[in-house]
Amino acid sequence: MPTPPSYADVESAAARLDGQAHRTPVLTSRRVNGEIGARLFFKCENLQRMGAFKFRGAFNALARFDAGQRRAGVVTYSSGNHAQAVALAARILGIPATIVMPHDAPAGKLAATLEYGAQIVGYDRYTEDREEIGRELAAERGLTLVPPYDHADVMAGQGTAAKELFEDVGELDALFVPLGGGGLLSGSTLAARALSPGCRVYGVEPEAGDDGRQSLRGGAIVHIATPRTIADGAQTQHVGELPFEIIRRDVDDILVASDAELVEAMRIFAATMKIVVEPTGCLGFAGVRRLGREVSGQRIGVIISGGNIDLDRYAAMLAGPWSARG
Amino acid sequence: MPTPPSYADVESAAARLDGQAHRTPVLTSRRVNGEIGARLFFKCENLQRMGAFKFRGAFNALARFDAGQRRAGVVTYSSGNHAQAVALAARILGIPATIVMPHDAPAGKLAATLEYGAQIVGYDRYTEDREEIGRELAAERGLTLVPPYDHADVMAGQGTAAKELFEDVGELDALFVPLGGGGLLSGSTLAARALSPGCRVYGVEPEAGDDGRQSLRGGAIVHIATPRTIADGAQTQHVGELPFEIIRRDVDDILVASDAELVEAMRIFAATMKIVVEPTGCLGFAGVRRLGREVSGQRIGVIISGGNIDLDRYAAMLAGPWSARG
Repeated sequence: MPTPPSYADVESAAARLDGQAHRTPVLTSRRVNGEIGARLFFKCENLQRMGAFKFRGAFNALARFDAGQRRAGVVTYSSGNHAQAVALAARILGIPATIVMPHDAPAGKLAATLEYGAQIVGYDRYTEDREEIGRELAAERGLTLVPPYDHADVMAGQGTAAKELFEDVGELDALFVPLGGGGLLSGSTLAARALSPGCRVYGVEPEAGDDGRQSLRGGAIVHIATPRTIADGAQTQHVGELPFEIIRRDVDDILVASDAELVEAMRIFAATMKIVVEPTGCLGFAGVRRLGREVSGQRIGVIISGGNIDLDRYAAMLAGPWSARG
Repeated sequence: MPTPPSYADVESAAARLDGQAHRTPVLTSRRVNGEIGARLFFKCENLQRMGAFKFRGAFNALARFDAGQRRAGVVTYSSGNHAQAVALAARILGIPATIVMPHDAPAGKLAATLEYGAQIVGYDRYTEDREEIGRELAAERGLTLVPPYDHADVMAGQGTAAKELFEDVGELDALFVPLGGGGLLSGSTLAARALSPGCRVYGVEPEAGDDGRQSLRGGAIVHIATPRTIADGAQTQHVGELPFEIIRRDVDDILVASDAELVEAMRIFAATMKIVVEPTGCLGFAGVRRLGREVSGQRIGVIISGGNIDLDRYAAMLAGPWSARG
């Protein structure tokens, strides 16, 4: 049975990623600090290669393939950032990549994945099970499956972002991390426990699907229907088993944020900090804003997970009927 | 008669700004590099305090006030980033600030200026001369006038952005800088000549008003009517006298960019690099794209001057009828 990674695995991942992933900047804003009444440090994985932290985990996992695995290739399923991350990492490492994506995935995402040289296998998201298709392709073609989060090497890679954050700014009172399948949250938690032992760690998930919170509070993974939320990177039906082992042990709490709160955070990021953040990437900051006075005077880390959003959709959210004050 | 600053003044400015201005990140994008066929280094002054490089020059100028000047206060005229920059620098230094702004300035800019604690004196931009009002206020109230660009301390402060860029990435083949009144371009040129002597320096101004190019080619400052362009930070009628002494001597060429090219650059910044850049801030990159193959294989610096743009206007430009391919 697979075991979850340790912080030593995060350190090994960091060595593998050196020179491949950007060491993304940590941004601060006195205006935001003033409004929250705390000191916030934003780790900007929207400025990572291919626009999201997912490159870290994918590259770390693929870099560990042996010669036979490299020749045969990798397969994964994703309609989001993990697809592009695997495609890009595979191209860099010279590994053939096959990505299982829904027929109706956004044209931009299909194009970006093809551009990185990956093969796409389509499926019908209403009648077919992408995980099963992935497993079948792996078995038939001898490919290695690298799932989006339930994988020790992926989790260890994702933890390198928080590692860099703590290295850059020192210990923190609390860290806020977007939560979908739990790869980023579990990896970040490993880094926090090692580098800032007193730091509280919060996962933040969409209010429309609080399976993570239910799972943490109940002590067992809860499955839900795909939540309806603009945070498409966190539309998971359940947390992964390996991530949950770390989350259950070391995460302090799971918070939720509504779509309106995500848009509000997105507008603040654009207007005040001049960065483009996708809805899922706004979860951490929205979680801080929910806690409000509870974090007053503290040093707070926020992981911005990504910035990949169709420009028309982004423009509509910036200009749309969402009120800046909720 | 005032004399233009030297690189030693840029170094002194950097010491004054240490701990006050952000050392803004230098971002790179493999995708952009691939499209241009060169290595681009973007100095992100849109991530500077108050959202633009203007804070550097304003703070440097105000930090040099003597005790009497500090007590009496500062006055300036600006409808743009310089107003907020002076207001913020004045607040930090405890200096009373008076800003001459048009009655019909955007409410957001008026609010931001007031929020920094400055006093606003309104004027009618169609019937009154803001420079005259500024000079009168200075004379009547004993205030020190800090104009937006035609001032040695302002120019020296603006040069610190390029200084940081060269320190971070080493020598470059060419540097592209937005051009309005010439404060940023002249300061950047001082840094380039000192830190990367072989680097070509280009100013880039709106196509609608190519007074800078005419001035450089003719050897004397050309005055024009206020150009109609979305690059509101570069709607100057002429280059400043002090900046022009440096520009004439050491700038290699002045390029122009159309509004459509600025929007295209803005969309690339948002979609590929995940940063919000105001139209004026897109001038440098638009200049690189104009030169195209001429910069092939080279190491190119681009100064992004600012990111202050009303969100509704920004959203309209991202979503609007502008084609991504021109």
